Amino acid sequence: MLTPKQKEYMRLLVEVGVNIQQGQKLIISCQVENAEFARECQRIAYENGCQEVIMRWIDDPTTRMKYLHAADEVFDTCPEWLVRFMTDYSREGAATLHLVSDDPESLLGVDPSRLARWAKVSGEALKEYREMMMRNENAWSIGALSAPAWAKKVFPELPEAEAIEALWDKIFTAVRVLGDGSAVGNWQKHAAKLKERMHILNEYNFKALRYRNALGTDFTVELAENHVWEAGGDVTTKGVPFMPNMPTEEIFTAPRKTGANGVVMASMPLCLKGTIINDIRFVFENGKIIEATASSGEALLREEIALDEGASFLGEVALVPYDSPIRQAQVLFYETLYDENASCHLAFGEAYPSCIKGGTAMSKDESKAAGLNDSITHVDFMLGTEDLSIVGITQDGVEMPVFVDGLFAF
Amino acid sequence: MLTPKQKEYMRLLVEVGVNIQQGQKLIISCQVENAEFARECQRIAYENGCQEVIMRWIDDPTTRMKYLHAADEVFDTCPEWLVRFMTDYSREGAATLHLVSDDPESLLGVDPSRLARWAKVSGEALKEYREMMMRNENAWSIGALSAPAWAKKVFPELPEAEAIEALWDKIFTAVRVLGDGSAVGNWQKHAAKLKERMHILNEYNFKALRYRNALGTDFTVELAENHVWEAGGDVTTKGVPFMPNMPTEEIFTAPRKTGANGVVMASMPLCLKGTIINDIRFVFENGKIIEATASSGEALLREEIALDEGASFLGEVALVPYDSPIRQAQVLFYETLYDENASCHLAFGEAYPSCIKGGTAMSKDESKAAGLNDSITHVDFMLGTEDLSIVGITQDGVEMPVFVDGLFAF
Repeated sequence: MLTPKQKEYMRLLVEVGVNIQQGQKLIISCQVENAEFARECQRIAYENGCQEVIMRWIDDPTTRMKYLHAADEVFDTCPEWLVRFMTDYSREGAATLHLVSDDPESLLGVDPSRLARWAKVSGEALKEYREMMMRNENAWSIGALSAPAWAKKVFPELPEAEAIEALWDKIFTAVRVLGDGSAVGNWQKHAAKLKERMHILNEYNFKALRYRNALGTDFTVELAENHVWEAGGDVTTKGVPFMPNMPTEEIFTAPRKTGANGVVMASMPLCLKGTIINDIRFVFENGKIIEATASSGEALLREEIALDEGASFLGEVALVPYDSPIRQAQVLFYETLYDENASCHLAFGEAYPSCIKGGTAMSKDESKAAGLNDSITHVDFMLGTEDLSIVGITQDGVEMPVFVDGLFAF
Repeated sequence: MLTPKQKEYMRLLVEVGVNIQQGQKLIISCQVENAEFARECQRIAYENGCQEVIMRWIDDPTTRMKYLHAADEVFDTCPEWLVRFMTDYSREGAATLHLVSDDPESLLGVDPSRLARWAKVSGEALKEYREMMMRNENAWSIGALSAPAWAKKVFPELPEAEAIEALWDKIFTAVRVLGDGSAVGNWQKHAAKLKERMHILNEYNFKALRYRNALGTDFTVELAENHVWEAGGDVTTKGVPFMPNMPTEEIFTAPRKTGANGVVMASMPLCLKGTIINDIRFVFENGKIIEATASSGEALLREEIALDEGASFLGEVALVPYDSPIRQAQVLFYETLYDENASCHLAFGEAYPSCIKGGTAMSKDESKAAGLNDSITHVDFMLGTEDLSIVGITQDGVEMPVFVDGLFAF
């Protein structure tokens, strides 16, 4: 039995996150162990006139066994059924809801080349699906569910049951669910507030941002010409508002592909493909990552930035103040959905077409010509610190503070 | 954590049931709530050199919600991804293991026409897959797992946890798992014993069987020309032995499509598509079911025998003595895998090509010309009773007893 807060949260994900429409299909991905949450989302979706809910069940131990024990050739072919599943439902306008509760270390020790080879073949095979998703042709959203392995990683000192409860508490705070039916209203207010600062940034129309902190980050990134800052939700190409990430605290845009230079020190571990990568250090030159090191998980990181040409260039620049409610939770979530909303971050890989004017109507060639990066991957990594300063450089070369000591200067 | 008996049973299913081969793929279907059993099967499959295990997760409540609340048109199209999934893996030689633990009434109250329409479109779309399965191109097997809803139906008087345990005990007895590693040997002995009677029946080469009991069954069925009785396991067209059903107590063959006449009274409820059908009565004329009634579930039954032309003709004749170990368990399992192995039964719908000489090498047209029934469905129903008599009629018209008072006469 779900609690009233859990039910209110599931409703928020279905009605605000993917904003399911009458007659629309909905794909839900969910760990098998969290089936009751998926069933509640299904119930709410059908209540809203959803045409059909299609489940995409995930099981971390199954995936781990496959990467450890399946034959090597398995990772070099993407089966046609998966291409049809992802692509056909997208063409039919299906929304997608990801309920994540992954064990942050579910794939620890797996051969990174298997992960990379699979990422490459599936990335190529699912290109059409990915492009539709990145262009916001259909609504998609990610929400998180507390679960044993994840909760114990976040709260290693607590017994399992208490850890699960503690993580639920942090989740409810982050997604503004109080259990009194106020969540939808809370989100409207929150989104409006994010959009205020978004408008200011759009008016500044900076040419570049320069990042510095004591950790060693000393880095400049040019923003894409005609870039657009986004925040507090998106709108599909069919005009349906949706909230890709819940929680979301970021204001983000697209960099100019070749415009990144300097050193970036990650300020948090990155949980990527079931492995934790610690102490990332990147050196950029003319947009490209020319050095990449980490104190753990480096092999996986190197495979990831070598997936294709665009994987070693940036695709997102996102601002999150150090007093974000998620940062204030004072825990490391080992889950990008949460950690990226506690910290200024960047992403290497694919850029969002919606982050430049007219981008969602552009062909791939047009958006590349406009300076957007193209890749089969998109990985956020965190660089925000308490002392981070970001200076905005306007189109006519004037410098002005954007972040001072980890917080917005305006 | 699985018990030693549960582990031994999973090993039996993988190593004897589907007899997984080095380099072969394995598809496992399983309710999400029984994930740990599926994971154990995966582990054993990889240990045996399985190339890749592909999970097909099932969730009864998800399926029920879909049938109750999805839009009507959903049941009139089979998505291409499902066709590719089933067909492509079969072409690649994948074995299939079904771990069943379904709630016998999971679809109670669902509109039978939705079930029938979906059966029709998926049956057509998955024709190639089905024909490969019926021809034994790849190994497949069905095993059962005790689970709450099913166990409570079998043991309504017991508290849930005890019911689950009691059902496990019945399952272990039926599948000859003692927990001492003897299961594989037990199965070899059992299969050899079934095959002894099978050989006798094959030597008799009966033209027809006549059934009679006090319940009202008075029925004659001609067997297919060149029919072959099968029992105790099968062999794929590639020569790999496998055990389609675990347990199995039946000796079965194919009827001549147009050769059934008379009245059959089912002796047990039939659990079909999440609904229990009670007190089935069929009247046959020249092979065809011309009357079909039931005290409950009649609408679903009528939809099923109207699925296509062959659905109202017989596809299987199976002999099981009334002292079968599963009958001696003295419970009604509400699961055909078990109940059909406690009772003489028939099936309407598709016949097994392996039940006539040279059948697996025949084209569909050839096997139809040889008198085998063709249909998208195959539903077993039980007619065995304590007083059942079956008389065999030889090719030259001699009558001899096959069953006397529910037991083999030889």
